[in-house]
Amino acid sequence: MALTLAQLAEQLGAELRGDARLAVSGVATLAEARRGDVSFLANPKYRRYLAGTRATAVILAAADAAAATTPVLVSENPYAAYARAVRALYPPPAPQQGVHPDATVAAGARIDASAWVDAGCVIAADASIAAGVQLGPACIIGSGVTIGEDCRLIARVTVLAGAQIGKRAILHPGVVIGSDGFGMARVEEHWEKVPQIGSVCIGDDVEIGANTTVDRGALGATVIENGVKIDNQVQVAHNVFIGAHTAIAACVGISGSVRIGRHCTLAGGVGIVGHLEIADHVHVNGMSMVTHSISRAGSYSAGTPLMETRSWRRNAVRIKQLDGLVRRVRDMEKTKQNR
Amino acid sequence: MALTLAQLAEQLGAELRGDARLAVSGVATLAEARRGDVSFLANPKYRRYLAGTRATAVILAAADAAAATTPVLVSENPYAAYARAVRALYPPPAPQQGVHPDATVAAGARIDASAWVDAGCVIAADASIAAGVQLGPACIIGSGVTIGEDCRLIARVTVLAGAQIGKRAILHPGVVIGSDGFGMARVEEHWEKVPQIGSVCIGDDVEIGANTTVDRGALGATVIENGVKIDNQVQVAHNVFIGAHTAIAACVGISGSVRIGRHCTLAGGVGIVGHLEIADHVHVNGMSMVTHSISRAGSYSAGTPLMETRSWRRNAVRIKQLDGLVRRVRDMEKTKQNR
Amino acid sequence: MALTLAQLAEQLGAELRGDARLAVSGVATLAEARRGDVSFLANPKYRRYLAGTRATAVILAAADAAAATTPVLVSENPYAAYARAVRALYPPPAPQQGVHPDATVAAGARIDASAWVDAGCVIAADASIAAGVQLGPACIIGSGVTIGEDCRLIARVTVLAGAQIGKRAILHPGVVIGSDGFGMARVEEHWEKVPQIGSVCIGDDVEIGANTTVDRGALGATVIENGVKIDNQVQVAHNVFIGAHTAIAACVGISGSVRIGRHCTLAGGVGIVGHLEIADHVHVNGMSMVTHSISRAGSYSAGTPLMETRSWRRNAVRIKQLDGLVRRVRDMEKTKQNR
Repeated sequence: MALTLAQLAEQLGAELRGDARLAVSGVATLAEARRGDVSFLANPKYRRYLAGTRATAVILAAADAAAATTPVLVSENPYAAYARAVRALYPPPAPQQGVHPDATVAAGARIDASAWVDAGCVIAADASIAAGVQLGPACIIGSGVTIGEDCRLIARVTVLAGAQIGKRAILHPGVVIGSDGFGMARVEEHWEKVPQIGSVCIGDDVEIGANTTVDRGALGATVIENGVKIDNQVQVAHNVFIGAHTAIAACVGISGSVRIGRHCTLAGGVGIVGHLEIADHVHVNGMSMVTHSISRAGSYSAGTPLMETRSWRRNAVRIKQLDGLVRRVRDMEKTKQNR
Repeated sequence: MALTLAQLAEQLGAELRGDARLAVSGVATLAEARRGDVSFLANPKYRRYLAGTRATAVILAAADAAAATTPVLVSENPYAAYARAVRALYPPPAPQQGVHPDATVAAGARIDASAWVDAGCVIAADASIAAGVQLGPACIIGSGVTIGEDCRLIARVTVLAGAQIGKRAILHPGVVIGSDGFGMARVEEHWEKVPQIGSVCIGDDVEIGANTTVDRGALGATVIENGVKIDNQVQVAHNVFIGAHTAIAACVGISGSVRIGRHCTLAGGVGIVGHLEIADHVHVNGMSMVTHSISRAGSYSAGTPLMETRSWRRNAVRIKQLDGLVRRVRDMEKTKQNR
Repeated sequence: MALTLAQLAEQLGAELRGDARLAVSGVATLAEARRGDVSFLANPKYRRYLAGTRATAVILAAADAAAATTPVLVSENPYAAYARAVRALYPPPAPQQGVHPDATVAAGARIDASAWVDAGCVIAADASIAAGVQLGPACIIGSGVTIGEDCRLIARVTVLAGAQIGKRAILHPGVVIGSDGFGMARVEEHWEKVPQIGSVCIGDDVEIGANTTVDRGALGATVIENGVKIDNQVQVAHNVFIGAHTAIAACVGISGSVRIGRHCTLAGGVGIVGHLEIADHVHVNGMSMVTHSISRAGSYSAGTPLMETRSWRRNAVRIKQLDGLVRRVRDMEKTKQNR
């Protein structure tokens, strides 16, 4: 796929400054680009590569245009324009249609004629696969599950428990949707399972990363609203609610019945205690544990700074003495005042 | 499935106060219940929904009965009674029997006639599948593995390394049992693999959540005793021992040769350093790192409280100065005393 | 498999002290060894078991030889010698050759005649599987992927995105290589996907643990150099670079574009913020969050010590007051000086 800069500018909605007839056929970083590539500047950290790039053209913000030595495509959102340039120059493979002979499809499963079911898939009798859906190899679609139009399940995705998945979802390998939540009742000296009979309801345009797990509700549903983006190895427990357009980075763990607002961002490794509520537009920094509900938009953090271990040992042990230390300081302050 | 309140009370071992002939056919939360549902009150947080519920009856403790406006089923353990109500009203699908034609079963595998092996399963020649076992789609049962009576492997479970699994285990999608432990010897400038030749031994009534991994022993076995419950995405390293009826929430990581007692509870995201021993009846709070053995029952925690990031930045940097601060306070105290 | 001590000593490059004709056929810990086993002493913690062991011989360092009551195999690196003894006495099963009839191999896939493809595998048309490769059950090898000589994919491994894997890699069940990175651009009120078009490049002698995920580059490749060892449930984001012979324990999360040096060790649960650089020979202790680049070899830590919850509650809340406390101490110090 090759495009002239004129064509590309039009597709990106960008303003071209430079020779409109030049062609590009690839996208690369400023440092790695070669002739024929379009590059981009979205992170100021990489501005130093702008002068020396071999790219044929660079997507950037108006403020950076003067510093460029190549034709430029000026955009108000250079990162989004870069994403669109990738989409234009690397179109995804054309969707396939039909059912691979090595798939196992139970009689009664509703699979739209325009959908594709690859080898090793196992589809239950009352599952429903909508138009344009692409099921990669070895996906398991359980009883009562609905997969909406144009979803892509890349490979080895498991969807159970009558989960309803909206349109255009992208589910990556190893994803499990609809596993049992961790529910059990203490009876004398042992645990008795609380049967999990709820479901999972996922909106449109949701993306879920490799080996992420989303449990079914205990009663009622675990809900992921439209446009939510979830990275790899995230755990979403039963009856969690995730508001629209929230983004969750890798290795986050969300306990049962947590309610997360819209437009939130959780950085990697965050953990959220059960039954909490988090307002819209909340950002939580990496590896923080959220131990109380958050009712105000804003940025939140926990954790201690990284130190050399020698120094950390000396300081960390003092945390155990912190309450005592505060009391000692208070005592001294009182003594002083009383003098 | 519908039951009269009389029938339900009998199955729950609960005391019915109200019209015994009323029928229920579903279970729902107090807020969401409709006529024909039984609901429950186990968490005081939800008491405010008791008066307004539309449920036909409510399972609750004697102390809450007076506040109810519906028939009630009084139980000493309302949460366990709720679990039983779910089991009574939503019986699991009847077990299947036989081997799906799209399963791959090596000659010599012992599969009880009452077991079920679904499509995409791969069973090794000397594996043994006991009576009543239900293997969902795409499970892999390796050489020398034994799966005990009435186990349910929901889908896509991998069991290797001659692992022995007791009765009635429930293993969720993506579980890996018997993967190699992380053992290697430093030889000059590289790592040499220590072959992992041990196994995994799992007791009866164990449940293991989606995408959890349990490594085989290096030598000897990784052991999970009866009644242990493990949530999603937990990592159990080689030669770990987990005592009976311990419950482990999601995203916990347990390093090699750790020995955990009975009736412990580990909250989500806890990490345990290798070779430690943890007594019976220990509770560890979420995301704590256990860095030393725990010889006494009790509750343990680590970590810092969540703050607004602005405030966290000011405070967290001070942790690096904590040892110095303690010394400064001590100096001032001495000066004062010497005056 | 049984070996005389003379044979074993030769294979280990160890010095035998004792009866060369005695035979051993197993390896066990000092405490569990029986007659016919060789044992080893590598961790001083287990020295107390040396006198009472029933092992036929013990692998140990010269300094420990005098304390032994059995024949000994003296080695400068007893742990590595133990690893070799296991390899000698428990040779892995002979490699298999061919393609199982229940595998799905697309026309055009290049599979060396000496490789093995087990049941349930799905191999794309332009994948390339080199000599001696062993693909266990249900592996998925995507378009353009190359698997180097003598690799072992134990079971249920997914390799996509044209990933190139070197020789002798060992990939454990549930591993996903080449999933999309978490890239998206904010456009007004929603997220737009940044198509991930890079690949993954893995060197020789790499081992990757169960359910670990390695994302493809956004542009360019995610790189894992020779001899890197990665444990279970590790997340490696797009465009990460991991230098040769670095070892990464379970549950580590590495954000996008992080560059890790050679011979590093990351303990369990460590998290690394995106775009950081870590020098060679850096060690990071368990569950630390790396928030800035590390330019010097050494050991680094973060986190707070484990306490009884009662004590933790009193101390942890003081962390929120720490900045104020430092100021109060400074004020008192000033007052004192001014007096």
